[in-house]
Amino acid sequence: MPDVELDFSRTEYADRLQKVRAAMEKAGVEVLFTCDPSNMAWLTGYDGWSFYVHQGVLIGPRGDPVFWGRNMDAIGATKTCYMDVADIHGYSDDYVMSTERHAMQHLSDLIREYGWENARIGVEMENYYFSAKAHQVLLAELNGPFVDATALINWCRAVKSETELKYMRRAAQISERMHRRILEIFEPGVLKNEVAAEIYRTAIWGGEENGVRFGGDVSAICPLLPTGDEAAAAHLTWNDKPVPNNSGTFFEISGVHRHYHAPLCRTIWLGTPPNSVPRIEAIALEGIEAGISAARAGNTAGDVASAFYAVLGRHGVSREGRCGYPIGISYPPDWGERTFSIRPTDTTVLEPNMTFHFMPALWMPDWGLEITETLRIRESGAAEPMSDYPRKLFVKN
Amino acid sequence: MPDVELDFSRTEYADRLQKVRAAMEKAGVEVLFTCDPSNMAWLTGYDGWSFYVHQGVLIGPRGDPVFWGRNMDAIGATKTCYMDVADIHGYSDDYVMSTERHAMQHLSDLIREYGWENARIGVEMENYYFSAKAHQVLLAELNGPFVDATALINWCRAVKSETELKYMRRAAQISERMHRRILEIFEPGVLKNEVAAEIYRTAIWGGEENGVRFGGDVSAICPLLPTGDEAAAAHLTWNDKPVPNNSGTFFEISGVHRHYHAPLCRTIWLGTPPNSVPRIEAIALEGIEAGISAARAGNTAGDVASAFYAVLGRHGVSREGRCGYPIGISYPPDWGERTFSIRPTDTTVLEPNMTFHFMPALWMPDWGLEITETLRIRESGAAEPMSDYPRKLFVKN
Repeated sequence: MPDVELDFSRTEYADRLQKVRAAMEKAGVEVLFTCDPSNMAWLTGYDGWSFYVHQGVLIGPRGDPVFWGRNMDAIGATKTCYMDVADIHGYSDDYVMSTERHAMQHLSDLIREYGWENARIGVEMENYYFSAKAHQVLLAELNGPFVDATALINWCRAVKSETELKYMRRAAQISERMHRRILEIFEPGVLKNEVAAEIYRTAIWGGEENGVRFGGDVSAICPLLPTGDEAAAAHLTWNDKPVPNNSGTFFEISGVHRHYHAPLCRTIWLGTPPNSVPRIEAIALEGIEAGISAARAGNTAGDVASAFYAVLGRHGVSREGRCGYPIGISYPPDWGERTFSIRPTDTTVLEPNMTFHFMPALWMPDWGLEITETLRIRESGAAEPMSDYPRKLFVKN
Repeated sequence: MPDVELDFSRTEYADRLQKVRAAMEKAGVEVLFTCDPSNMAWLTGYDGWSFYVHQGVLIGPRGDPVFWGRNMDAIGATKTCYMDVADIHGYSDDYVMSTERHAMQHLSDLIREYGWENARIGVEMENYYFSAKAHQVLLAELNGPFVDATALINWCRAVKSETELKYMRRAAQISERMHRRILEIFEPGVLKNEVAAEIYRTAIWGGEENGVRFGGDVSAICPLLPTGDEAAAAHLTWNDKPVPNNSGTFFEISGVHRHYHAPLCRTIWLGTPPNSVPRIEAIALEGIEAGISAARAGNTAGDVASAFYAVLGRHGVSREGRCGYPIGISYPPDWGERTFSIRPTDTTVLEPNMTFHFMPALWMPDWGLEITETLRIRESGAAEPMSDYPRKLFVKN
């Protein structure tokens, strides 16, 4: 048994593996290949910024998961995963950025070595980093049949363990610290990138628990802080210009600890906002309250969205789209867990210790309001907001 | 013509489009779909952390490029791209995280609207964010024939313009500032994440040029700073533990400006290094000098690698793999340009104003040495290191 310091107990990893095997059986998958870095980490502990080359984890009918990646990342696996080195395999750099050979040929050889060449193989057709070419090469190499196992593991991650919640609470504390720091420094004339620099510093510096420091981690989405009409476009980042007075800026950010996220968004208005702004704020807050109140075990994800949309409808505010998604461990490019959505048509039943980012942002043509919460579903009653930070539009003038 | 502040002149964007159309013709591609965010940005100016949902740019036989993405990101496109709004198209949130419909169905409708349904369509089979599922849906929707256009645009980006080089020099200045700051604060007992926090702060704070500040941008790879035997695994990030004395740590980082990168890696030894360390350092430095000297117009990428490996061979040091890759504009997960490689077998002929990260790291079993340079190929003579920072192993004791 390798001497590796893990973020979770071996029992917890064993439970996860069992959960995944049960889901595989249900989906008719005999061997599962996952290359979604968050799935890899959740299943094996694997950690590293190596998902820009082909890599993955194989889960066969028995035994431990099998790590497969570039040689130098296989070394990383021996330092972060719980599996024995016998189940950690590397390929040479000849397979990296080559037009002559493809890493999936090496993976196919490995699958044959394990005797799984005739198994029903599940692949994540729509998860990140499984390229169209990777799929094409696997199809040419192996007999299959192949099963689309998109999000199979992601669904297993929905209900969080106590340790996962502990990490998410730390992430939530970091999110609070980030917003407090933003509120201190954000003022007319400050350069946008200076604000982003402080956000990063605060995020990675981390937090404190019973007098003991803990660190922040890389976020799966970079801080977003668009101002004024930029905020109507949801995913702009920052520039190096001074922040103008009499404008609204939202801060879409997440504290992260051991790759677990707890996003929290707030909006700051510099100067005196026009009358429409507090009106929209009040409607948003009422909608958020309604959503949180509907976010309880036994209700559906759709119920949460409907409660929020009902408030908007009552006030004649129109909006389209999702207003939330499950959250937990993640790597770039997305901190969402990519299973259910908080939208009226979603029938997923909420269970205790599911966690999601309730994200009822209101993007107007010339400004945007983001006041959001990361929520945990309780055994009973309304959901628990994981951060403790004033839920309002902040005005500085 | 939309009133958008662009990072490059419209003439430069027009030149790029022309270059891509020439490459398309050579590859027999009539309509090209790119979803690699760095290709999208280079071609159109599009900027935003939105590549976690399906999006892309279509280049048809004539006219401007066509932006296609989620509705809220289409708004982002109107604020960052040079094209007219008539060439910017959005899809509704119904297509996001849906098992009933796929965004590529929407894209197929758009392709039909433009009258391109019978065109030879190029898709980036092996670039980022083109999922196996996306390809499958496109194949089912359209007649094709489809052509693998992986890296077609990436290759067009190899030779940098004056403005691109200006941005890269700024990025290179940021890289220097980051290393100077690291050297100041790195000492036994400091928490790893505190160091990472300062690296981020310095990177985003940016630099100064003729008394005018410029900002740093998000890096396509997060800072890597493994210590001791962790450094044998190339892609570990950081933890929240104190840095031990008598250990080596490498810092694989890049300053970034307007999404242009100029990576620069250095290694710091805390305490007194064992004799093997300065010996390896001397070999590495000799190898780097040899590589830089071979990095000149008319030589091949392979010549650079061979010059480096010849030095290693003379000293009996073994190493496998690539020792560099082209560099420029990029978004996560990789700052490399993903075309040629600095390795002995690569026959790519180097041209003036090509830029690459010469990355001859030496990963030992129990430590790692990274001393690297971002190089620009000159009209004649050895390549220009874009940063100006002491090229050596730093020892603090």
